Amino acid sequence: MTVKVAVAGATGYAGGELLRILLAHPHVEVGALTAASSAGTVLGQHQPHLGPLADRLVQDTTADTLAGHDVVFLALPHGHSGAIAAELGEGTVVIDLGADHRLTDSADWQRWYGGEHAGTWPYGLPELPGQREQLTRANRVAVPGCFPTGGSLALGPALAAGFVEPDVAVVAVTGTSGAGKSLKPHLLGAEVMGSASAYGVGGAHRHTPEFVQNLSVIAGERVAVSFTPVLAPMPRGILTTASAPLVGDTGVDTIRAAYEKAYADEPFVTLLPEGAWPTTGATVGSNRVLLQVAIDDDARRLVVVAALDNLTKGTAGAAVQSMNLALGLPETVGLPLTGVAP
Amino acid sequence: MTVKVAVAGATGYAGGELLRILLAHPHVEVGALTAASSAGTVLGQHQPHLGPLADRLVQDTTADTLAGHDVVFLALPHGHSGAIAAELGEGTVVIDLGADHRLTDSADWQRWYGGEHAGTWPYGLPELPGQREQLTRANRVAVPGCFPTGGSLALGPALAAGFVEPDVAVVAVTGTSGAGKSLKPHLLGAEVMGSASAYGVGGAHRHTPEFVQNLSVIAGERVAVSFTPVLAPMPRGILTTASAPLVGDTGVDTIRAAYEKAYADEPFVTLLPEGAWPTTGATVGSNRVLLQVAIDDDARRLVVVAALDNLTKGTAGAAVQSMNLALGLPETVGLPLTGVAP
Amino acid sequence: MTVKVAVAGATGYAGGELLRILLAHPHVEVGALTAASSAGTVLGQHQPHLGPLADRLVQDTTADTLAGHDVVFLALPHGHSGAIAAELGEGTVVIDLGADHRLTDSADWQRWYGGEHAGTWPYGLPELPGQREQLTRANRVAVPGCFPTGGSLALGPALAAGFVEPDVAVVAVTGTSGAGKSLKPHLLGAEVMGSASAYGVGGAHRHTPEFVQNLSVIAGERVAVSFTPVLAPMPRGILTTASAPLVGDTGVDTIRAAYEKAYADEPFVTLLPEGAWPTTGATVGSNRVLLQVAIDDDARRLVVVAALDNLTKGTAGAAVQSMNLALGLPETVGLPLTGVAP
Amino acid sequence: MTVKVAVAGATGYAGGELLRILLAHPHVEVGALTAASSAGTVLGQHQPHLGPLADRLVQDTTADTLAGHDVVFLALPHGHSGAIAAELGEGTVVIDLGADHRLTDSADWQRWYGGEHAGTWPYGLPELPGQREQLTRANRVAVPGCFPTGGSLALGPALAAGFVEPDVAVVAVTGTSGAGKSLKPHLLGAEVMGSASAYGVGGAHRHTPEFVQNLSVIAGERVAVSFTPVLAPMPRGILTTASAPLVGDTGVDTIRAAYEKAYADEPFVTLLPEGAWPTTGATVGSNRVLLQVAIDDDARRLVVVAALDNLTKGTAGAAVQSMNLALGLPETVGLPLTGVAP
Repeated sequence: MTVKVAVAGATGYAGGELLRILLAHPHVEVGALTAASSAGTVLGQHQPHLGPLADRLVQDTTADTLAGHDVVFLALPHGHSGAIAAELGEGTVVIDLGADHRLTDSADWQRWYGGEHAGTWPYGLPELPGQREQLTRANRVAVPGCFPTGGSLALGPALAAGFVEPDVAVVAVTGTSGAGKSLKPHLLGAEVMGSASAYGVGGAHRHTPEFVQNLSVIAGERVAVSFTPVLAPMPRGILTTASAPLVGDTGVDTIRAAYEKAYADEPFVTLLPEGAWPTTGATVGSNRVLLQVAIDDDARRLVVVAALDNLTKGTAGAAVQSMNLALGLPETVGLPLTGVAP
Repeated sequence: MTVKVAVAGATGYAGGELLRILLAHPHVEVGALTAASSAGTVLGQHQPHLGPLADRLVQDTTADTLAGHDVVFLALPHGHSGAIAAELGEGTVVIDLGADHRLTDSADWQRWYGGEHAGTWPYGLPELPGQREQLTRANRVAVPGCFPTGGSLALGPALAAGFVEPDVAVVAVTGTSGAGKSLKPHLLGAEVMGSASAYGVGGAHRHTPEFVQNLSVIAGERVAVSFTPVLAPMPRGILTTASAPLVGDTGVDTIRAAYEKAYADEPFVTLLPEGAWPTTGATVGSNRVLLQVAIDDDARRLVVVAALDNLTKGTAGAAVQSMNLALGLPETVGLPLTGVAP
Repeated sequence: MTVKVAVAGATGYAGGELLRILLAHPHVEVGALTAASSAGTVLGQHQPHLGPLADRLVQDTTADTLAGHDVVFLALPHGHSGAIAAELGEGTVVIDLGADHRLTDSADWQRWYGGEHAGTWPYGLPELPGQREQLTRANRVAVPGCFPTGGSLALGPALAAGFVEPDVAVVAVTGTSGAGKSLKPHLLGAEVMGSASAYGVGGAHRHTPEFVQNLSVIAGERVAVSFTPVLAPMPRGILTTASAPLVGDTGVDTIRAAYEKAYADEPFVTLLPEGAWPTTGATVGSNRVLLQVAIDDDARRLVVVAALDNLTKGTAGAAVQSMNLALGLPETVGLPLTGVAP
Repeated sequence: MTVKVAVAGATGYAGGELLRILLAHPHVEVGALTAASSAGTVLGQHQPHLGPLADRLVQDTTADTLAGHDVVFLALPHGHSGAIAAELGEGTVVIDLGADHRLTDSADWQRWYGGEHAGTWPYGLPELPGQREQLTRANRVAVPGCFPTGGSLALGPALAAGFVEPDVAVVAVTGTSGAGKSLKPHLLGAEVMGSASAYGVGGAHRHTPEFVQNLSVIAGERVAVSFTPVLAPMPRGILTTASAPLVGDTGVDTIRAAYEKAYADEPFVTLLPEGAWPTTGATVGSNRVLLQVAIDDDARRLVVVAALDNLTKGTAGAAVQSMNLALGLPETVGLPLTGVAP
């Protein structure tokens, strides 16, 4: 089986990572590559690491250029996917790496992003309860935000089991590729190297409602989420530290056992052995999430740490994982289980 | 006025930063430099950035080599300061950059560090209520840990005013010099660069009781502290994200006003203008702490972010600030108010 | 076809990269993993990025543990490969990632490494003239040093054509993984980040005779090589700047044409389009070398820049490329043509 | 003595470093701060590390705003200094951190920069033979380019003594602040971190004629310079590796002695002890240049390595050093001899 795949937004970081994975996927033929301002150039100018595609022409992002493919990935700024998707038929699998189709509540969309909500698609995090079924043979997929992926996997089992109160604090340290190739002064190398900074503090980051949405479904009640992203001097990676007040006196062994059970059959989520702590470096370029849990006895909180690559499991790897499910392929095919380290 | 100063532990990171500051201090003459295994070498081999001291001999750390100085700084591994200090007379100002004399509760010391507690000295964080008075003309000073400095300044005013519950969560991202020059595999450049990792999770970091001690005094009741340190790929800097549940419906303006008032006369603590967020890069090599506050309305938490240089305000700058007070000098003399950026 | 492969030195950086590649190789089954001081532990403690091998036991490096494999890779400190190899039969393909079998001149070996020379094996740089033939169906391979790989490919075509004098200057900027996992103070993250430094200056680096050997064979006369390695704050990558005085008035077009011809059929060596310059970032994790050439008209020198990943094409990728040739497999099978960027 | 100083281009990296130094200078009062597009904002938005100037208004760069100061520093893009300087009287010391007044040959200017040459001013590298005299009590100073500073100091003594042929190869690894705060894709943090790249290869960098000019004056004959800059993942620092063919059989001791003599009285240039090699990290924020020399016996080349901070001795520190001379102050006043490390 070979499917023909188009990538809209091929010159950005998400598009580049997607193409890196797709080039190694045994069932994929890379078709149209499109972008906005870079149309008319060759891909090698933008993605010099993708040798095999160096001479491929970048086309305009239009329904025409994207037509005739089995799968279309949309790696576009938010607000751009709805219109394009509407022009692609039901027979095309459309996978949106942007935010347009993630939220289930249109009011949330309007509050956080503004404008009209494009709609809600199956959510590309198969590790969430019930989600894998919705993704199987789906023709539309909304890829999760990179931050909610780590936070949802970190706290999901504890909330599902009622080990913690529905009141969580998340601080996630991210590499700078999460901000895309935007030409902003604070993203210049000289500013970034040797410095850490917080942003979107006080619940101002647009991924916050997605955290709330995922965790509330899991908990069966509304979960309050205080989320703070921190920019660190590394190109890739998210290290999530998520904590919540413990309910009762559940011990760490019980909690470990719940996490082990929750992820026992998940190929991409690993609870590390006791004593080992996740590093983002170990996940670079892989589709894995590494987890560890601890109980803070004095403060009576559960603390869970999760490491992942924001561009792989956080974006492009999740997109291909969902594509596999949508096409009825084995979920893991073409997805790296090893990181590139050091 | 010129005081003669000795530095024990001159070859480490804390010792090096201390000497950098002391070299620019108008009232200091640098005397004996001592170390353990490096005794007999010249300082230039260990601290090539300290040009003026390149040819100075490193001596053994003994009471003899440290005798005859007005001020002795001890930048030693914990457990080593008590014995040395006991041999230095009351007429000598002894400033301990290690942990030996920070904790007020001997049981805490035994639990977290083991062995017998060396005693409690005035705590070198003059910005804490009442502390400046204790440091003035003191002849013994315990320099705070780098993490509790950021966390205590970040949450102090809110706890003092009762704006938040005594139940705080702190995640602090630190540069790797905080771990010292220890030859450990996970501190190698290739491991560190491009990777973030958490450690001491679940309240296992030895700075935790110091957080609790500081914040409980401020709050007038025991404060629960969940503290997680995160190692990020940068040599210096700590970015602290501290949050706690809001009490009642205090607004952000009231909270800002309290922080402004608390730090109005503090030369080294700056609440940034609204909309500006602290970066550790702006504090490198300076004795400043940059703060910003936010309220998360949905999660009903106060979030405070603090940036500082772990080696300067976090260690060596605080030591010199305390020395100034101990000697009756103006508190700011010789201390940099500007960072080295980018 | 499936070959069973053992890796001696599995816990180091070269061993880790080798295993990363081997895990994705369609004809390889990973067998024994061995090390020295880490024997008895599991691989996950040392290589957390290699998920599928996390629970594999690390054994002692002995002829016994390595016996019974079709291919044995030796990623050992120099001086250790000869004895082990002597105990492995002729039917086993032995690929030495260390220096023991690279030099053709025993006097060179003694001068640069000391002790007795273990012998000379086919040299695992198939892109050098005549080398591919020697590697095909070989049962012993010496993998080149990471620096000579870049320098030899950068200057080979120019020296072969007589465009430059046999008197070259090479400065190569390297990531710190090239130094291995050695616990040395200057390799600590805090020392490395934000700093560049030269070492082995004045022709003191042990890769120098390998440069001379390769380039002299190509030039047909002894080539003088001034080689300076520079350590830069990045985990991986070598950027080689190689220059030599031009002979006569050969123009840049002629030189470009010679390089294009030389590498036209090489799957892993790419002369970039005019105006594009190699970045090591584009080669991370891939087996590619990116080249660009320029003429300095005023100084009358040819300048060639080459980028590669020191652990992939510079070590482990070259080893697998040679294994493919030794086994009669297609040369490119299992080797990544895409880098992991950004 | 207190001089009033204005800085044009106060929001860029050179301007920021200049202000950092000037704030610590005992004879300076910081006056007008000007910029182009940022006029009307406060400096704290652009230079958050300069606490004491956070609230200072940034004005337009005009002769009016710069008038009435004893010293005016121009940190402007090339081509902008001439017109401004012409409007400032002879009684004002004008120090140009840009390229406009560095070259002595107008034809060189036109070839490398285009447009009309603004003229030649005393060259702010007092360590060059005869230069200190020209700078003393000068009212116009051209601050050298960051690259030629390292290269000229590295090779000057050897060329002056005739130890090497006038045919040098220079590769200089630079931090990214050298490119300024330009919003260019290749300067984004995610592109820069983990990657090294060459640019301006083949003698295309505009600092090349300045190398040739400096070294030719020293050598007393035209020196051919092949110069290649390499961008490395660090905010600051230049590590220069400069080499040239040895003339005759001069030994390394003779050469060391010549360098020692040449720099014996230079406060900011240090020939390191034998066996120690320069690191840029040791020079961060200081006005020092660290040097080491080696002879490559096999290749018969002299290799000199120099480390400096491109923003300090490479730009702003050199500017203040020249100001001191121009004002008749001690040359070293206000200039840091210690770096900020690690």
